[in-house]
This record gives sequence, C-alpha cells and structure tokens, in this order.
Amino acid sequence: MSTRNTISSKKTEPKAMKTAKQSSYAKAGVDVALGNRVKSGIGALVRPTHGAEVLGGIGGFGGLFRPDFKKRGVKDPVLVASVDGVGTKLKIAFATDRHDTIGADLVNHCVNDIAVTGARPLFFLDYIAAAKLDPDVLKQIISGLARACKEAGCALIGGETAQMPGLYGKGEYDLAGSITGLVERKDLLDGSRVKVGDALIGLPSNGLHTNGYSLARKVLFDLLGLKLTDRPAGLGTTIAAELLKVHRSYLPAFEKLRAMKGNPLHAAAHITGGGLIDNLPRILPKGCDAVIDPRSWKVPAIFGIIGRGGNVDPLEMYQVFNMGIGMVLVVPSKDGKRIAKSLGGKIIGGISKGSGVVRFIPEPGK
Amino acid sequence: MSTRNTISSKKTEPKAMKTAKQSSYAKAGVDVALGNRVKSGIGALVRPTHGAEVLGGIGGFGGLFRPDFKKRGVKDPVLVASVDGVGTKLKIAFATDRHDTIGADLVNHCVNDIAVTGARPLFFLDYIAAAKLDPDVLKQIISGLARACKEAGCALIGGETAQMPGLYGKGEYDLAGSITGLVERKDLLDGSRVKVGDALIGLPSNGLHTNGYSLARKVLFDLLGLKLTDRPAGLGTTIAAELLKVHRSYLPAFEKLRAMKGNPLHAAAHITGGGLIDNLPRILPKGCDAVIDPRSWKVPAIFGIIGRGGNVDPLEMYQVFNMGIGMVLVVPSKDGKRIAKSLGGKIIGGISKGSGVVRFIPEPGK
Repeated sequence: MSTRNTISSKKTEPKAMKTAKQSSYAKAGVDVALGNRVKSGIGALVRPTHGAEVLGGIGGFGGLFRPDFKKRGVKDPVLVASVDGVGTKLKIAFATDRHDTIGADLVNHCVNDIAVTGARPLFFLDYIAAAKLDPDVLKQIISGLARACKEAGCALIGGETAQMPGLYGKGEYDLAGSITGLVERKDLLDGSRVKVGDALIGLPSNGLHTNGYSLARKVLFDLLGLKLTDRPAGLGTTIAAELLKVHRSYLPAFEKLRAMKGNPLHAAAHITGGGLIDNLPRILPKGCDAVIDPRSWKVPAIFGIIGRGGNVDPLEMYQVFNMGIGMVLVVPSKDGKRIAKSLGGKIIGGISKGSGVVRFIPEPGK
Repeated sequence: MSTRNTISSKKTEPKAMKTAKQSSYAKAGVDVALGNRVKSGIGALVRPTHGAEVLGGIGGFGGLFRPDFKKRGVKDPVLVASVDGVGTKLKIAFATDRHDTIGADLVNHCVNDIAVTGARPLFFLDYIAAAKLDPDVLKQIISGLARACKEAGCALIGGETAQMPGLYGKGEYDLAGSITGLVERKDLLDGSRVKVGDALIGLPSNGLHTNGYSLARKVLFDLLGLKLTDRPAGLGTTIAAELLKVHRSYLPAFEKLRAMKGNPLHAAAHITGGGLIDNLPRILPKGCDAVIDPRSWKVPAIFGIIGRGGNVDPLEMYQVFNMGIGMVLVVPSKDGKRIAKSLGGKIIGGISKGSGVVRFIPEPGK
C-alpha cells in the first residue's frame, strides 16, 4: 500500500472510505487510515513552495508544472534531472530521533547536482519508504524537504510515502528524491570551456554532507567507541551535531557567478560520493588533469578524527569524503583569487596537461 | 557511498581510482570498485532509450533532456511529474530471484500515473537501494526499467544506486522512480470535463499490478500456506507467475483515444493503492458520484482466492486491490460502448449526481 502519490496544491485530500476498525489490510501491517491521516497534514508544509508555475486542483496522480520560459529568460530550454538519496546519514537521524534536517540534506544535494550544469531548480519529488509510517516523523522529514525547496526556489510537487512491512526495520526509513531543473542551452556547462591553466576554486563543505557515513559510523562508533553526545578534542561540537550538519547548498554561489560580468564559470563539480578523486574527472576534457594541493585548505577536524581513528589510507580519505571541499569551480586563472574571495572559497589547484585524472601534489599524508 | 549518480549517454564511465585491495570503505561494507564495475554495464542497457532529445557527454551530475516542443506539437507546455515505488511486490522478486520485470512494473505504474493527466512521458530516473550491490541483480532490474521505458518512448536519463549497509536485509533492495511527462495545457485532463451521465469504461488489469502485496502475501503464504510453485484451482498458473505479472501500461489506449476524432476522453483514473474507492474520487467534480456495477466485469481468480482465503470484507477488497480494473476512463455516454470495444474494455458504470464518492450498486458481496 502506498499513499500520498502526489502532493497537489488542492486543499481537499482524497477521501478515505471507512473500513472495518481492524481491517485485513491493517492486520497485514498496512494502515490505510493512518496513511490518509498523515497525508492531510502535508499540504500546509508543501504549499509555500508552490509558485505561479505550479498548477493545482487535479487531485493527485501527477504534479503539474508550467515553466514560464519567458519570465525565466530561457529560449532554448534544456531540462536537467537528477535523483539521489542520503545514504546512511539516515542512521544518524534514527539514532538522534531528529528528522527535520535530513530532507534538507537531500534537496540541497540534488540542487547542487544540477547546479553544476548551470541549471536552476524547477521542481522536486520525494520518496519515503518505511515499514510503518510515523506521522510525526513524516512531517519532520517533509518540513526539511519543504524548507530547502523554498530556499532553492524549487516547488515540491509530488511525493510517495510507501508502507512496506518487512522491508524496513522498526523506526527506520529510506528517503530519496528527484529534481528537475532548467538551463538555457547555450549556458549549459559541459566541461568544454575548461582549459589548461584554469584555476580550481574549492568552496567549503559543511562537514560530511551526505557521503561516507558508513565508514564514518564504523570508525567513530565501532572502532573509537564514541557516543553521539561525545565532544572529541578539536571538534567543537558533539558527534551528533557534527554528523547532522546539513549538506550545504551552493546555489547562492552559482547565482553570484551568473551575476558577474560574462559569467566566468568554466565548469563545476559537486564533491559527493567518490570525493575529489572521482568527481573532478567528470568535468575534465581530454588531455587535462586537475592538480590539487591538499595543503591549500584546512581539512575540518572530523575528517582527521575519522582518518586517524580508522587508520584509513590518506588517499582513500579523498575518495570517500569531501575533506572540506563541497564544490569545485573552474574559472580563468586571472579571475581566480577575486572570485574565490567573493564566494568564500580558496584556490586549491589548477588545470594542467594530463590524461583526465586528479593528481595531488604533494600526495596526502606524504 | 552512492554510485551511478546519473546515467549519461557518454560511452566512457567515471574513472575509479585504484585503492588498497581491502580498503577501509570495503571493510565498512561499501565496495567502491564493485560500484564502478556495475556501472560500466549499464550504459548499453540504457542508451537504446535515448532519442534525439537526450543530450549526452556531460559525465554524470544531471541527465539532460531538451524537449522538442515543435516536433511534439506543444505550444503551451505543462510538465507532469510523478514518483512511485513498487511496494512489497519486491518480496516476490526476492523470493523467486527474478528481477527483470519489477523495473517494468515501476515504469508502467509511473507512465499510467501521468497518462491520466493527458501527458506523454519524456524521461525517467530510478533509485535502487540495497545493503550490497549484486551486479547481476542490478542489471536485471535496469533491463526491466529500460525495456518499459523504450516501449513508452521514455528516456532513462538518470539513476542512483545506493549501497547502504545495515538498512536493507541480505539479498533485498528497494526500487523507486520518477517520471516527467509533457502535455499541451489545453489538453490537460483535470476532471472539469466530467459530466453527469458520462460512462465509465474499465480497462482490464493484468493481476495485482503493484498494489496490495502485503495483504496478498499474508493471505496466500501465511493463512493459506501456499507456495510460490502452487497452482490453486482456477488460477491457471503458479502463484509466482501470477504475482509477478507486469503492471500493464495503458499508454497505447491513451494514444488510441488521442487518435479518435475530437479525443472523447473526459478524464481517467489509474487504479492503484486505494482501489476504485480511493482513486476515482480524484477525478470527480463537485456534485458527482461514480456509480459502479461490480457485476459488469469478471473479477480475476487471484482476487477471489485472496478474498475468500483471508475472509476479507468484500468492500475492503475494492479499496486494497484493483479487482481486475487497472484504468477507468470517463467518456460521453453515447460513445461508451464503441470506445470500450475498441480498447478492449467494458462499461462498468457511470457518473451520477452525488457528493464525490464511489457507490457500488449492488454492493460487493451483497
């Protein structure tokens, strides 16, 4: 049984038929009435994300979005779509019983994934699956989704909440979502503008974002025996607070770049699973390497704690974690310092001749 | 750790850095190399779904789709988006170790969800989550997704495969997806054309589709003690084959309707979770009921077996299962019989004055 197929902006919700108090479906682990009860609270959270482009009143099979290309100044529209989850960061949400930020993690992750192509977000859809729906938890999750969508100018136009007895553990859920954005074709960032000599700007991450949690949890909890409430030296906060820090949205940085004369951005890479090592090659044209000086920024304390605690190979750290750099921008060398300063980032390296890989000079840990 | 952020149509795959044979991440349950190995086989499955509107060569943060509005004859484009899962039908895929159809279930479900608004599919993104990736299972799943996408003229432009140790059981996974489609604004089906006197055409389902599996499994396996290989009287096939029958796509029926003079379709409802009882009200305008004669079609044997075996309230059966009707079309009364015949459906009732609910006359089981 699945519910909340689509969040419509209609104020009425689908009617639930009254069934026997303890229905057969309920005995099988699916609570239809609960599903409907939960749905009814969602509209108020979601509606503030709906602008004039969201068409309502259709009651829920599909979310409707009428893009105003004229107002958006787009003549040759390209839609950019991405889907993602939040990985085992969820386990931290479960352990802390804090569910109002994980939705923002997901939305910001998706917003960044399409921002690197030059796209602005149009709309978002979420998928939440659990053995049993907890109405309060669901509302918390959706409040986080809606808050981040609102900040990104992105309409939350649909969602699926699936009750799947036997697939998920008690009190656990999975959360995924997809985003669709828009870019003018000529403004599409496809790596083709990247040139030898370009500067690499690293924008700071806000902690682990949504990657590397399986390894982080293993080291912090299993190997080091830390608790969520512990405050390891140098961290400046609790493990719980550190691990729940919300994945940063870089959309404001992209807007600033667009506002600069001639938009100096040649390419951008969102540093997610695979770290700098796997994500930067995605934007390297043939014959180019990204050369990075790992001493050029301060790696946040949490990564040091994990690396030392797990005796993790220093290079592997840069393939699992963002190591403090959540977004890399490629810009003309002459503008690098100025742009880095205006965006709160740092020059972390440059583009040189090569074969499409990332080279660290010096190598981390050496 | 997540991999396969987006399926690009680029023939090269992101490079994986060689890490120590048994890396820390692998010890934590995430196999980066496996993730990359799996990815490399996906392109060949997905590429055939890409038409001229899919832009490639960007290496993977977002899938790019440039809708050709002119060729599609759309002047005032409305995007229609939906997200869905396949519920615990997954448990049947696990038990039978058959994974090449569940993706088609998901795609067809989504295709139908937007078809009822009048939309044709543009592109699809999938989300697959498991504790550990099995490359062969993943390929099977994606082959089903790609096959159904190809049939629906829908590009599979992105996917996320998440490895989440500790969240999913061994050999289990979850599967969800989102679809984006396109409809000319004036052709949008929003229920406003539905009138008292209209006929309801039921198009046959192909079994349970993707709804009611938790109850079906409880009754068939727990209460009746049936096995997947059993062939109950009247079913004409095994329980496994019956429960794996692929969710039917009604897109061809919608195309036939569009080809009819003046497109006689007033509205359509996809009969998913909630059955006829919860899904039909979504398209009922104020002051209208849907009156259905449940004797007007033959309910397939599987529903009888579940209903009797679980002693399920007859009315509840119509709120959990599709009961043999996968799609309901609302058309002018005078055209009803002709259209029903041409689409292989049956007149199952009509629109009468009322308050937005479904009434069965006579009531099922009475």
